[in-house]
Amino acid sequence: MAQLNTVKINWSKKGLNFNAQDEHGHTITIDTAKEFGGLDQGFRPAELLLVALAGCMSMDIVSILQKKGGCITSFDVTVQGYRAEKSPKEYEKIIVTFDCQGDYKHEDLERSFKLSRDKYCGVFATLQKPARIEFNL
Amino acid sequence: MAQLNTVKINWSKKGLNFNAQDEHGHTITIDTAKEFGGLDQGFRPAELLLVALAGCMSMDIVSILQKKGGCITSFDVTVQGYRAEKSPKEYEKIIVTFDCQGDYKHEDLERSFKLSRDKYCGVFATLQKPARIEFNL
Repeated sequence: MAQLNTVKINWSKKGLNFNAQDEHGHTITIDTAKEFGGLDQGFRPAELLLVALAGCMSMDIVSILQKKGGCITSFDVTVQGYRAEKSPKEYEKIIVTFDCQGDYKHEDLERSFKLSRDKYCGVFATLQKPARIEFNL
Repeated sequence: MAQLNTVKINWSKKGLNFNAQDEHGHTITIDTAKEFGGLDQGFRPAELLLVALAGCMSMDIVSILQKKGGCITSFDVTVQGYRAEKSPKEYEKIIVTFDCQGDYKHEDLERSFKLSRDKYCGVFATLQKPARIEFNL
């Protein structure tokens, strides 16, 4: 049977502030800018999409590079998402910049990155071949 | 000029635990299950994709429905993401179930939902018409 991920979100009844819960007891606050009616107390949803993509690939790369014998002393990622001018202001371009410091072969880093992009990262794959999305209201 | 969203992610040097920061001073922890080398201290990246989608639409719906005069007493959302059997285990189907309680016209809720889906939600739109993604390594 295919794996099922479930998350829950509920409105905190203040502005546009929401809480999200996963199945493992973790919670995060999501919110938006005060100018849009939010309280600015958490990540904006569109920014979480960037975190999901880069986080997924970073976990793959660190994990694979370490298995190849690489010693990583720091791993920093910057994600830039360029949005369309008009609503719905979808991301038109996303640039992910990885900065991996330590003692490793650069070809191993490249290979780890390609394995994530082409084989392992479910978030990247979902952005390439979008899921069917259904709603119940 | 198109709007630019930037997030940063850095490895905490423990397991597959990472910190993410937005441009507004918010931070979240992302992590994975212990069986995959994580510390289980935060949301998994793939689950954040579900939060991004449902959070974005929920903010639109609550905001629009209130502007239409609706009184919302609770707004709860469940998001189920069904993943492919094989790597990269992309989401094949996502089901978003909204439960909105309060004093409002159901047709206003439907209209708010459709405005989000068809006009305002940048995350939904990105999942329909994926961004070009570039990498620097």
